Amino acid sequence: MPRDFKRLEEADLQPMALGAALLGTGGGGNPYIGMLRTRELLRGGATIEIMPLEALPDDAWVGEVGGIGAPVVGVEKVEEGGECYRAMKAVEETAGVKMSAVISAEIGGANSMEPVIVAGLSGLPVVDGDGMGRAFPEVQMTTFFIYGAKPAPAAIADDKGNVVVFKEMVDMFWLERFARDVSVGMGAGAGFAVAPMRGDFIRKTAVPGTVSQAISIGRTVLNARAKHQNVVERIVEETGAKLFFTGKITDIERNLVGGFARGKAKISGVGDWAGSEAEIAIQNENLVLWVDGVPVIMVPDLIMNLELETGEPITTEMLRYGQRVAVIGLPVHDLMKTPRALEIVGPAAFGYPDLTFKPL
Amino acid sequence: MPRDFKRLEEADLQPMALGAALLGTGGGGNPYIGMLRTRELLRGGATIEIMPLEALPDDAWVGEVGGIGAPVVGVEKVEEGGECYRAMKAVEETAGVKMSAVISAEIGGANSMEPVIVAGLSGLPVVDGDGMGRAFPEVQMTTFFIYGAKPAPAAIADDKGNVVVFKEMVDMFWLERFARDVSVGMGAGAGFAVAPMRGDFIRKTAVPGTVSQAISIGRTVLNARAKHQNVVERIVEETGAKLFFTGKITDIERNLVGGFARGKAKISGVGDWAGSEAEIAIQNENLVLWVDGVPVIMVPDLIMNLELETGEPITTEMLRYGQRVAVIGLPVHDLMKTPRALEIVGPAAFGYPDLTFKPL
Repeated sequence: MPRDFKRLEEADLQPMALGAALLGTGGGGNPYIGMLRTRELLRGGATIEIMPLEALPDDAWVGEVGGIGAPVVGVEKVEEGGECYRAMKAVEETAGVKMSAVISAEIGGANSMEPVIVAGLSGLPVVDGDGMGRAFPEVQMTTFFIYGAKPAPAAIADDKGNVVVFKEMVDMFWLERFARDVSVGMGAGAGFAVAPMRGDFIRKTAVPGTVSQAISIGRTVLNARAKHQNVVERIVEETGAKLFFTGKITDIERNLVGGFARGKAKISGVGDWAGSEAEIAIQNENLVLWVDGVPVIMVPDLIMNLELETGEPITTEMLRYGQRVAVIGLPVHDLMKTPRALEIVGPAAFGYPDLTFKPL
Repeated sequence: MPRDFKRLEEADLQPMALGAALLGTGGGGNPYIGMLRTRELLRGGATIEIMPLEALPDDAWVGEVGGIGAPVVGVEKVEEGGECYRAMKAVEETAGVKMSAVISAEIGGANSMEPVIVAGLSGLPVVDGDGMGRAFPEVQMTTFFIYGAKPAPAAIADDKGNVVVFKEMVDMFWLERFARDVSVGMGAGAGFAVAPMRGDFIRKTAVPGTVSQAISIGRTVLNARAKHQNVVERIVEETGAKLFFTGKITDIERNLVGGFARGKAKISGVGDWAGSEAEIAIQNENLVLWVDGVPVIMVPDLIMNLELETGEPITTEMLRYGQRVAVIGLPVHDLMKTPRALEIVGPAAFGYPDLTFKPL
């Protein structure tokens, strides 16, 4: 789905935010504030270039950035704006390199906008791709870490001027642990940057074209709405997604466990699914969809809840009793389906050891 | 009390550990394991020099090191040994300086031995002095931070190879917060090093002669025991301490609050204090001594519980119903009694805003 465009325009931002919210598969936080910030940067004269993955030189250093914390906090505790940029500069200083481009840790949700903001502040281009092709809750759940990116030096920065560097890390799981702890001390919202990665590594490991994909999905939704078409149908037609269930939410169970929102949603079928019952397991993102007790979509494939009438993506914290939803599924990129990847982002990694991943 | 000696000998270690335990005022952790480690270093051929404070050149960089975590954890989770050294090296790399000497954050308890171990590993001398002249629970409670030491770059290292650098910190309170959080992730026991400080600054702000003082106090105790003298009396005679109470512990209340052991001990008088009642407030260290409802010693002055018969210092976690104790007090160094210092380590800083500090 990558398109041939070079400069991010103001008109791209709303579709990008909408597409990123959908690719967030229920998590990843709301891209709205990041979108406003990017718009201000563009209006202030910043140039933000989207760089095709193939254009990355072998020896270019690429900085992966993203917000870290609880998405629900970001709604009230608005970022200062330079968090990810300061974290990336600390990584550059510690590693003794200069970045040539930035890339998103996850295209899904708020983190779609973070590298774009860094690009606007630094003048660096944004690579058209990301480390997940969706959203996931933890630092190590990127294609980069799955395929051997170094866990250090990484850095985290807050809105007040505090910068902490993870200078030497035993592995990516320790990085996740320390970064998570520090992000909580920073008020559960901070900017995060990982160790510099070479262009040739990024070309091999990034999920390609996901910035363009987000914009394209968003355009599909906006066009369908403008033409009063059935948005869910249009998304299914144009994105390669498949409709798996439509129904009404009859029960929601949500608990905050270890900094994550875990729970389940139950859905009673309507329309073609009248008489069927579905259930979705949640850990920030949607993890597994069962229809009449049979698991039909599971991580790392994408499970997305849309409002049945408007096609608006519903984040897991916004699920409510009585909502009428369409559940669609989209195959994740092949890089996320290798045995190595499934160890980190497969059903067992999320607490479902009895489920064997069956790709869509 | 500083003596004129240059090399730390094996024979100094037991007295030093004993004196440091006493200066820990009930907290600071047990120096025993650090003492064994230092002994191994000396037996392995290491030279550890004790450098008088006055000998520090103006422009020498000094590294302050200490363990950070819960002393009670250190009993079971033994340090690997190089934690503080690795933390100090990370500070050197980040700040771009080489240290010329190391100094203890706190002479009281286990942290008396940490700079000595770093000295044995690095070949650097240990400055005869420290940042507290006793033990305190938090990072910012050193004379160095009280008198303006920079809060960054500081670093923390664990036994596994993880090193986290606090690269930019708004102030010393944020440093305490982040270092505390990371130390918990590191298993509540880690090595900590703060930003390099210049020799002229250390000469003005360190509590002088406290390494020698610890050794001297320990010798007093050991000599008195060898000669079957009354140890408590000898400590009082030789250290400038004063006996404030003798009695039997009748009640102990201890709670773990925010990572600290807080509580109270009640003591019924015996001997000269028969008929009187005393109470000691605790937060890791002994904070305030009341006798018959009147506060007679309070932080930052030193309150020390000794076993009445043996003169052995009793740490707050070892206080037990029925113990017979002597409570002695020792004036803290003048650097800890200025208005600026009392803001950080006075009674109000420990939750006693109604107590006005009256120095011994």
